Amino acid sequence: MHAYRSHTCAALTKSNVGETVRLAGWVHRIRDHGGILFVDLRDHYGTTQVLCDPDSPVFAQMEKVRSEWCIRIDGTVKARDADLVNPKLPTGEVEVFVRDIEVLGEAQELPLIVFGDQEYPEETRLKYRFLDLRREAMQKNMTLRSDVVSSIRKRMWDKGFREFQTPIITASSPEGARDFLVPSRLHPGKFYALPQAPQQFKQLIMVSGFDKYFQIAPCFRDEDPRADRSPTDFYQLDLEMSFVEQQDVFDTVSPVIAGVFEEFGGGAKVDAPESWPQIPYKEAALKYGTDKPDLRNPIEMQDVSEHFRGSGFAIFAKLLEQDGTQIRAIPAPTGGSRKFCDRMNAFAQKEGLPGMGYIFWRDQGEGMEAAGPLAKNIGPERTEAIRQQLGLGVGDAAFFLGGKPATFERVAGKARDVIGEELGLTEKDRFAFAWIVDFPIYERDEETGTIDFEHNPFSMPQGGMEALNGDPMAVRGYQYDLACNGYELVSGAIRNHKPDVMLKAFEIAGYGADEVKNRFGALFNAFHYGAPPHGGCAAGIDRIVMLLAGTSNIREVIMFPMNQRAEDLMMQAPSDPTSDQLMELSLRVIPQD
Amino acid sequence: MHAYRSHTCAALTKSNVGETVRLAGWVHRIRDHGGILFVDLRDHYGTTQVLCDPDSPVFAQMEKVRSEWCIRIDGTVKARDADLVNPKLPTGEVEVFVRDIEVLGEAQELPLIVFGDQEYPEETRLKYRFLDLRREAMQKNMTLRSDVVSSIRKRMWDKGFREFQTPIITASSPEGARDFLVPSRLHPGKFYALPQAPQQFKQLIMVSGFDKYFQIAPCFRDEDPRADRSPTDFYQLDLEMSFVEQQDVFDTVSPVIAGVFEEFGGGAKVDAPESWPQIPYKEAALKYGTDKPDLRNPIEMQDVSEHFRGSGFAIFAKLLEQDGTQIRAIPAPTGGSRKFCDRMNAFAQKEGLPGMGYIFWRDQGEGMEAAGPLAKNIGPERTEAIRQQLGLGVGDAAFFLGGKPATFERVAGKARDVIGEELGLTEKDRFAFAWIVDFPIYERDEETGTIDFEHNPFSMPQGGMEALNGDPMAVRGYQYDLACNGYELVSGAIRNHKPDVMLKAFEIAGYGADEVKNRFGALFNAFHYGAPPHGGCAAGIDRIVMLLAGTSNIREVIMFPMNQRAEDLMMQAPSDPTSDQLMELSLRVIPQD
Repeated sequence: MHAYRSHTCAALTKSNVGETVRLAGWVHRIRDHGGILFVDLRDHYGTTQVLCDPDSPVFAQMEKVRSEWCIRIDGTVKARDADLVNPKLPTGEVEVFVRDIEVLGEAQELPLIVFGDQEYPEETRLKYRFLDLRREAMQKNMTLRSDVVSSIRKRMWDKGFREFQTPIITASSPEGARDFLVPSRLHPGKFYALPQAPQQFKQLIMVSGFDKYFQIAPCFRDEDPRADRSPTDFYQLDLEMSFVEQQDVFDTVSPVIAGVFEEFGGGAKVDAPESWPQIPYKEAALKYGTDKPDLRNPIEMQDVSEHFRGSGFAIFAKLLEQDGTQIRAIPAPTGGSRKFCDRMNAFAQKEGLPGMGYIFWRDQGEGMEAAGPLAKNIGPERTEAIRQQLGLGVGDAAFFLGGKPATFERVAGKARDVIGEELGLTEKDRFAFAWIVDFPIYERDEETGTIDFEHNPFSMPQGGMEALNGDPMAVRGYQYDLACNGYELVSGAIRNHKPDVMLKAFEIAGYGADEVKNRFGALFNAFHYGAPPHGGCAAGIDRIVMLLAGTSNIREVIMFPMNQRAEDLMMQAPSDPTSDQLMELSLRVIPQD
Repeated sequence: MHAYRSHTCAALTKSNVGETVRLAGWVHRIRDHGGILFVDLRDHYGTTQVLCDPDSPVFAQMEKVRSEWCIRIDGTVKARDADLVNPKLPTGEVEVFVRDIEVLGEAQELPLIVFGDQEYPEETRLKYRFLDLRREAMQKNMTLRSDVVSSIRKRMWDKGFREFQTPIITASSPEGARDFLVPSRLHPGKFYALPQAPQQFKQLIMVSGFDKYFQIAPCFRDEDPRADRSPTDFYQLDLEMSFVEQQDVFDTVSPVIAGVFEEFGGGAKVDAPESWPQIPYKEAALKYGTDKPDLRNPIEMQDVSEHFRGSGFAIFAKLLEQDGTQIRAIPAPTGGSRKFCDRMNAFAQKEGLPGMGYIFWRDQGEGMEAAGPLAKNIGPERTEAIRQQLGLGVGDAAFFLGGKPATFERVAGKARDVIGEELGLTEKDRFAFAWIVDFPIYERDEETGTIDFEHNPFSMPQGGMEALNGDPMAVRGYQYDLACNGYELVSGAIRNHKPDVMLKAFEIAGYGADEVKNRFGALFNAFHYGAPPHGGCAAGIDRIVMLLAGTSNIREVIMFPMNQRAEDLMMQAPSDPTSDQLMELSLRVIPQD
């Protein structure tokens, strides 16, 4: 017999009754029923009930065993009495009578109970991650993550992509975030950097003639702490294709994403890729107040400025006299009660706005009545016109926000989420996707008036050189995101592979040719040797798994995460270097005051 | 029609004749045959011949095209004349008459010709890696690497393993080599380290209750330059299993390795895993002079000390009076000529030894004659006894080395290789595997007499605590390597998961309990909470691909490698940090004298 097990703890069924078996695993739970010890023995695969009474030659040893000890037992498989069968357990029809035991690893007093789902401070969980990970939820999350990544790989291979590893110790890549640096010992005073993404490498792979590339790629950014992201690194499905247009990328990646959500979404509805809308960035901002809309929520905001222009509601009327302002309505079907409207108004105030005006429509015996302060101020005709534009009726409400969209759009988007949620309009158990397209290439700093890249500088401007010679703020890029349930899952672009267009694009953002050559030298140089048109995208693995696992804490889907202060409490990183290490690297730490 | 292509450059056959097609790719070769331009258009998939004569509306544009320009053409598929068919090419029966062309990316004068296999200095190849990678051999190597890794993943999944990613930004892991450090910005003066291997993490994953782990894992070591390894990082198939013994690991990994070599070995013979010998470390040293023997070579060395003890060959006889000395013979079937023997003797001298004594046997008319200086000195009886022990005859030779094995073993191993090679004894087109087992846990420094770990400190000593209480130098570990054709492909161990045995093992090597807790705190701590017995191994991906690609230069199987000075010539890494970056990290570079 094998030294440790003849079966896993999920394997035994009625068909094994009478057999002598060997199991190994952890003591999940122990119960003492009047001198009979019942132990749930657990391994990665499942649980088997083993029992022991004074007739067993190892009863005394069995009595000493405690939770989370790792043990090996030999015993006889017995059928459970009919009333003791546990139909929820694959092994629920049997139990094993213990005849021999070996303690493989004892456990000290536990800082964290594996059985059940008691909550612990994150510090405890991360310090004793090896115990935390034994818990059912974490075993499931890690298994899910691994299976999702495998599934993605299989799907990419099936589409003719090959995975290539790109360097992790490389050059500083100025993509917006802060690099992690790695001092070079052989070249004192010089530093490598960890890649923020394999962006330049994947583009170089295309210039190298590989047609389709992907990688489950680690990306490193020295980020300031934020709850929903890792402060050091994350993984993305990174892909790139040559000789493609935007739609080709969509046609490639959409079924991969949809397939993964279907496979692991637990039966939730997954919108078919053919039905995923392509929403221009500007339209998304107007309708949803965000470029990552949650389309499970049917609410679409509308521009209702015309109804307020010159109206009796002085605040809005005056606002509209300024350039670039707008009044926007958030329709709230079934939200037509003063109580609800006041609560939403309070929500907007909590978010830093003066409030949200509202109108709601109620049945007034002989007809519909529009209630709320705004209705009074603008009068019945305008109120009715608004109602008709929004397609609302009795029992519904609408909220109004005004000003320059930049000042209220974020809150409007949040209000839309809250309204959809509170009114039960937002569908449950569904993954709703949309491609957001036509991102602007540039953004203008409101204060300084300077122009910079809105996203990343690698995207091909729609209309090419000609477009760049016109109004920069009107230039849109072949640049896109995939939104799902309010999250950005994928981001990508058709790249700018033409050196002259690249130089011009940078010039507009205030970067001279020297700076382009300095910052993106390898790529810029490569584009002078027969560069193919190419494009691709990157999908956030951690975020996909978070969505599928139904958690909003990224640390629930990472095996050994940092805490929010970028510390590994288990490994005790970062730590003090030795003076020899610093000397070898020709570095000195500047003392902190 | 698609903007860039209706077919790849490998797709067209006779069945497409008459169709209008669109192709995109690189101009591989251009020939001008009396006013007709023939262009081999190349993409990742293959090559198609396109042609153009003055009848084409784009002849003038076609004339301007140069090697490695990226172009898109439209044209008509025509059958080639029977005598112009190229049976070596999938597209060899057709050609495409060009009617339209678009230049997608021009190329400057090329520093490196893609067509053909002209050799270039490595500096040129690495600086212009994006051109170098377009060459047929590099496309093949990268494709091979990707396919090997995919195949490994599939094979591991099929065996019930899941891939989990372990941290890349983590704590210093004192496994012998030098860490790359990463300064922490949030914790000034503290440093992370890049993992030399996921060793501790994979063991923690086992303690966390995951039964079977693997990862295609990047490993980082700040190595001094050496030709056959990357100076910064490498990839390994890292795996670990719980509740296993050594043979279980062999049974798991052997078919994976054998399968990969069968799949990608180009028809070379792959020894079946059932036949892979398990050779104790000591025996390997004796027979092959190395712990990574090339078993395609049938030569096995033998201890022939007894025949020289007290013999007339004074050098050896005297040598044997010292403790720990030995005379070893390398049999050389078919090597029985003075010329060959002298050449081998010269080889040994070049390697730093005084030389190799030899005997060879020749036909002397009325019988066999043993020739060579040694035979004369020790006389016919001893010479004949040696011949019989080695199983040699007319036409064969034997070489002799003496002293403490440590002084000559390495050269003996090399001589065995050279002899096998030169005499044509070493089989070609075969991958020969052997598990090397029973590595000693400790080694003693000859000069200082101190004891240290021979390999890594994580292995379980055979015999456990009891063995550690005996002679440390006699303790062998459940530690093993897989050798293939003279390379170490895999290395692994059953781990020491018992805290008390771990402490004792470290104590023997001179490390106190405090140091164990300090250096391996997470693992040592975890072993106090119900650790399962576990073991595993790691296989070098780069090395496997090198063997399969038939190259001995690791840079031929890495997409964007560093040069031997740990510089990325294309990305220009490492580079000077900005003073802002250094300030943020609270670091100062110590000026070099």
